[in-house]
Amino acid sequence: MSFSPTFEKLVESLCCLSGVGVKTARRMALELLLKKQDKAKQLVNALDNALNKVQKCQKCRNLSDQELCLICTNPLRDHQVLCVVETPADVIALEQSTDFQGVYFVLLGHIAPLDGIGPEDIGLDQLDLRLKTEKIKEIILATNSTLEGNTTAYFIASIAEKHQIPTTRLASGVPIGGELAVIDQNTLSLAFKSRNKYKADD
Amino acid sequence: MSFSPTFEKLVESLCCLSGVGVKTARRMALELLLKKQDKAKQLVNALDNALNKVQKCQKCRNLSDQELCLICTNPLRDHQVLCVVETPADVIALEQSTDFQGVYFVLLGHIAPLDGIGPEDIGLDQLDLRLKTEKIKEIILATNSTLEGNTTAYFIASIAEKHQIPTTRLASGVPIGGELAVIDQNTLSLAFKSRNKYKADD
Repeated sequence: MSFSPTFEKLVESLCCLSGVGVKTARRMALELLLKKQDKAKQLVNALDNALNKVQKCQKCRNLSDQELCLICTNPLRDHQVLCVVETPADVIALEQSTDFQGVYFVLLGHIAPLDGIGPEDIGLDQLDLRLKTEKIKEIILATNSTLEGNTTAYFIASIAEKHQIPTTRLASGVPIGGELAVIDQNTLSLAFKSRNKYKADD
Repeated sequence: MSFSPTFEKLVESLCCLSGVGVKTARRMALELLLKKQDKAKQLVNALDNALNKVQKCQKCRNLSDQELCLICTNPLRDHQVLCVVETPADVIALEQSTDFQGVYFVLLGHIAPLDGIGPEDIGLDQLDLRLKTEKIKEIILATNSTLEGNTTAYFIASIAEKHQIPTTRLASGVPIGGELAVIDQNTLSLAFKSRNKYKADD
C-alpha cells in the first residue's frame, strides 16, 4: 500500500545510485522532501546542468565543461609530460596527492577482452595519434595496479615504444603505514624483489 | 585543480544526501554522467516532480500527492482505529510487517524540548481536534521505543484520556531471534517484568 506514488517513484530513482538500497533511498527521499528542500532543488539543477553541459574533453577524454578541459587549456602546465589514467577520479586523486604539473589522458576504462572492451573503446587510437603529432617526452602509466590495469599499461607501453617515447609506471610496494604481516603476498613479494638502497634522509 | 566546475557542483550537491561523503558522491557523479545518463534523467524528473507535487496529507500529515493521501481516502480501511507514528518510513514498515487496516497519524518528528520541538510542532493540536470531532475507538501508540518516542507516546496518551479513547502501545521485549546474553539490559529487564503466560500453540 503506497500513500504517495510520486514519493515511491523518487525512492526507485534514488536506488540507481551506486551503493544505495531501498531503505537508504527511502531515508534520502524523506530527508530531501521534508528537511532539505533547498538542497534538493540544488541537486535537481546541478544534475540537470551536468547532464546537459559536461562532455568529454576532445584532447584528453576527461570530463569537461567545454570542448577542451581546464587542464588541457592551462598554459602553465607541461604539455610534454602525459599521465595516462583510467578514470576522472584518478585525475582528482593524483592532483590532490602529487605536485604533477603535466597533462593527462583519461581512458575511461581499461582493456577487458572478456567484457568486450578493446583498445579502441578506451581511446588508444586517439592516444596513438597524439603521440605521433605532439612532442611528448614522457608517458607516465598510472593505470590501476590490477590485472586489467597492468594489461592496459603494457598495451600503452608498446604504443609508446613505437613512437620511441620513454614510459614510467607508478611504483608498487608496501603502502605507507602498512604492516608486513597483514599485506597480501603478491605485494610483499614484489616489494621484496624491488627493494631499494636505503637512504637515511628519506 | 578542477577540470570541470559543473562536475564539481554535482559532487557537492550529491553530498547533501545522508550518508554520502565526497568520495562516494564523486563515484555516484561519474556513474550518473558516464554510464547511467538515462537513469540520471529519470532521477532529475522524479526529484523535481516530488518537490513540486508531494505535500503533507491534510488529515494525517503523511506524504501525499493530493490534499488527502491514498490511505486516508481509502474507504476499505477502518477509520476508527488510529495508529500514531513518527515518520512516513514507519508507515511503510508497519504496512509491510502487519495486516493493520486502520488509518495513521504521522507526527513528522517527536517531542524534544532540548531541540525546541514542542507538541504543536508535531501536529498534536491537529490530533486533538481530530479526536474531538471524529469517532475514534482505539489509538495505537507506535512511536519509537526511545526516550523521545516514549515521551511523545505519554503526551498523546494524556490527550486521548481527555477524550476517553482507549490507547494501546506496541509491545516491548526480546526481538525474534534475539539471544538473552547479547540483548541490552533495559530490554531484558522489561521483557522479564512483562512476561506472559506461556501458551504452547503460539
